[in-house]
Amino acid sequence: MTLSLQTILKQRRQRLAEKFPDKALLWSGRAPARNFPANTFPFRPSSHFLYFAGLFLENAVIELEQGKLTLFMDNPSSESILWGGEQPSRDDIATEMGADRAYPLAELSPTNEEIATIALFDSTTYQEQCHYLQRTIPQPSQATGKDLALIEAMIDLRLCHDEGAIGEIRQAAEVSIQAHQAGMEATQAGKTEAEIRAAMEAVMIAHNQTPAYGSIVTIHGNVLHNHDYSHTLQEGDLLLADVGAESKGGYASDITRTWPVSGQFSPTQQEIYDLVLAAHDACIAMVAPDVEYKDIHWQAARIITKGLVEIGILKGNVSDLLANDAHALFFPHGVGHLLGLDVHDMEDLGDVAGYAPGRQRSERFGLGNLRLDRALKPGMTVTIEPGFYQVPAILNDPQTQETYGDVINWERLQQFSDVRGIRIEDDVLVTSEGAEVLTAPLPCQRDKIEAMTLIP
Amino acid sequence: MTLSLQTILKQRRQRLAEKFPDKALLWSGRAPARNFPANTFPFRPSSHFLYFAGLFLENAVIELEQGKLTLFMDNPSSESILWGGEQPSRDDIATEMGADRAYPLAELSPTNEEIATIALFDSTTYQEQCHYLQRTIPQPSQATGKDLALIEAMIDLRLCHDEGAIGEIRQAAEVSIQAHQAGMEATQAGKTEAEIRAAMEAVMIAHNQTPAYGSIVTIHGNVLHNHDYSHTLQEGDLLLADVGAESKGGYASDITRTWPVSGQFSPTQQEIYDLVLAAHDACIAMVAPDVEYKDIHWQAARIITKGLVEIGILKGNVSDLLANDAHALFFPHGVGHLLGLDVHDMEDLGDVAGYAPGRQRSERFGLGNLRLDRALKPGMTVTIEPGFYQVPAILNDPQTQETYGDVINWERLQQFSDVRGIRIEDDVLVTSEGAEVLTAPLPCQRDKIEAMTLIP
Repeated sequence: MTLSLQTILKQRRQRLAEKFPDKALLWSGRAPARNFPANTFPFRPSSHFLYFAGLFLENAVIELEQGKLTLFMDNPSSESILWGGEQPSRDDIATEMGADRAYPLAELSPTNEEIATIALFDSTTYQEQCHYLQRTIPQPSQATGKDLALIEAMIDLRLCHDEGAIGEIRQAAEVSIQAHQAGMEATQAGKTEAEIRAAMEAVMIAHNQTPAYGSIVTIHGNVLHNHDYSHTLQEGDLLLADVGAESKGGYASDITRTWPVSGQFSPTQQEIYDLVLAAHDACIAMVAPDVEYKDIHWQAARIITKGLVEIGILKGNVSDLLANDAHALFFPHGVGHLLGLDVHDMEDLGDVAGYAPGRQRSERFGLGNLRLDRALKPGMTVTIEPGFYQVPAILNDPQTQETYGDVINWERLQQFSDVRGIRIEDDVLVTSEGAEVLTAPLPCQRDKIEAMTLIP
Repeated sequence: MTLSLQTILKQRRQRLAEKFPDKALLWSGRAPARNFPANTFPFRPSSHFLYFAGLFLENAVIELEQGKLTLFMDNPSSESILWGGEQPSRDDIATEMGADRAYPLAELSPTNEEIATIALFDSTTYQEQCHYLQRTIPQPSQATGKDLALIEAMIDLRLCHDEGAIGEIRQAAEVSIQAHQAGMEATQAGKTEAEIRAAMEAVMIAHNQTPAYGSIVTIHGNVLHNHDYSHTLQEGDLLLADVGAESKGGYASDITRTWPVSGQFSPTQQEIYDLVLAAHDACIAMVAPDVEYKDIHWQAARIITKGLVEIGILKGNVSDLLANDAHALFFPHGVGHLLGLDVHDMEDLGDVAGYAPGRQRSERFGLGNLRLDRALKPGMTVTIEPGFYQVPAILNDPQTQETYGDVINWERLQQFSDVRGIRIEDDVLVTSEGAEVLTAPLPCQRDKIEAMTLIP
């Protein structure tokens, strides 16, 4: 039986009350202006607000205390109804979300009462927060006192997803899978990256979903966060697509596939693809309650290092190479991150969510980019996304060449010049039994991808 | 011969110097965070900045004085190059835009010198502006002194487009036309509005363009700014699509078409469509230098009123009906607006751009929504977008029924219940000879639309 929105939200605030008994105020924020106020970007509420409010309510505030929800928002103006049509009233919305009380915004008066909140990055809303609470609210990563206690309670709640959240991630994953299938089907030499991106994002728009983050659709997979789509696909290229949808309720999916434009990997591409896939599969096989996510990261690093030694790109003993972070030359990022209402879930809080209490980011090359260092628990959803890249900014760096020059077989590496970047990424739910790959229906085996990309 | 970006930009700042000899600083702004800073909405610079800088430069400032351009921006960080790949340096960018000087942002020190600027709506950037200029910068519509003089000079420049701007609008129009064709071709009963929107926006994405504003794709055309796409198209519905692309250089196009889902208008739909089309054609025929845009608005109102009297929906003498604003019952908005770097060009400045000096918005029903009241000049680009709508918030309003109850034939109107909303909108460039419809290749005659929407 699927729980109603009211029931899901009620359970969330009751769980909050157990962890944080005091009063909290959370702001939804506003759609940012695209140069002038009447033309805005799409509205996306603050994720902390959305977790308890469930609905995309612009310019609204909720008060949470002892399991009770009070909504502050204005009824639509007559101007807004004239241009925007009939809209639910504040009372309609209060009923839909199961609020205990609902008032106009004017009922929210500046107060000296010590009420916890979480700062938004939107400056206009942030100023409102400071105004109503009559104090300078610290950025989330600097929070203290009640604000910090609220943040810690939120992390406790949001780390492990409830049924409602998992249902939303499944919806986002389903559309993302279809988007990747559309991208594979659209792939053809002579088209541009932009055309493949269009085929993929059109699937999201058609389902009334949006990209959860700026899509990466590139033949230059070595540029990790590439938002240029201008290149024309050539026969020998690999296309890397890191594209995920956001569900109507605001939950993210995050999938990467890398496929050959021609439908056929070259032998060198195949060799590296199989290595990244082996790392991907082994990491997913490790996902289970109580497993340390950092160990999964090191598993990926170990498999990639071992494989690169066997292929002859790296030289030396695998353990020594790992101890010296040599894998990060080709796998410079972490193996993944939390996934939820944000694609990097709760990254607005800094590392407080991703790193267990007492743990801190390493300064080591590669490991310093790991976004998650916690023991896994049922309900957590993480990405698993190992990769191999030839990043010029790393490989051509004199410092790199001095430190790692001897462990890289540059001639051998030269032979893999047609492998700029490969990443394979899936979304994995930790269950009490082990794990469920939410994005599993999308094949990532080489032969299946080939079958899908063959132009009919 | 097409002018280079450097030449276009140089001419613009020379023309500025003639109108505004003092120093001006313009900020580009930043991409707003989508809940956390690493995940942003796409970056769109301030249009005033873009007019002189030509490029989408995030977190940059330009100083303009006596025709000289100084660029302040930082080189990409090594972190940014690691994740984002090779990027042009400040000097590369300065060369591309033809800047006279280029410095890091740190060279921009807070100053008490009286320098003009235009406030951005992004609060973070706004605070920077106030910090550097050591004063509280007024919102553009409240500007005084040098700020106002700069704004007036900007309006003078941006009202009439140069060759570079017209070229950009043409590119946006071309892609928007293809988007509408794709929308017409995709239309089929049983599909959702979202699916048609996807077909249209995919064309923009494939061309590396973006929607210039939130697309309206709806079978409820009576909701003027409808951003819901959840309905399923039915055989008897009209689909209204108000969808326009923004060129890579940031210029907007803005097109509306209304077509029958079945490929065939009903007799009532045809009657109203032909009336709106007649108004549209007559208004476009009026566009020429020195013509008052408000007269074009009244031309639309007159044709629609006369037509509705002939059809029997309105009762009475056309002149009296117009004098009493009865046309606004069914045509409540203005006939169009300025078009340029913003879809409502320079609307960030309030009515200072849209209304000629000394003119002010009327408070009359309908006329109060007219966004442009100036004599046309060559180089201006305006939309022409008459429409007919049955807006419940207007027609069911007791005030309306009291004031206009006698001039509406409610029984006759009832027969037109399958006409919720029709709008036809094109982008028109004022030329020295008269006008050029930049969106003309997209047919709006009923028969051609029918031909296009017939499903093969």
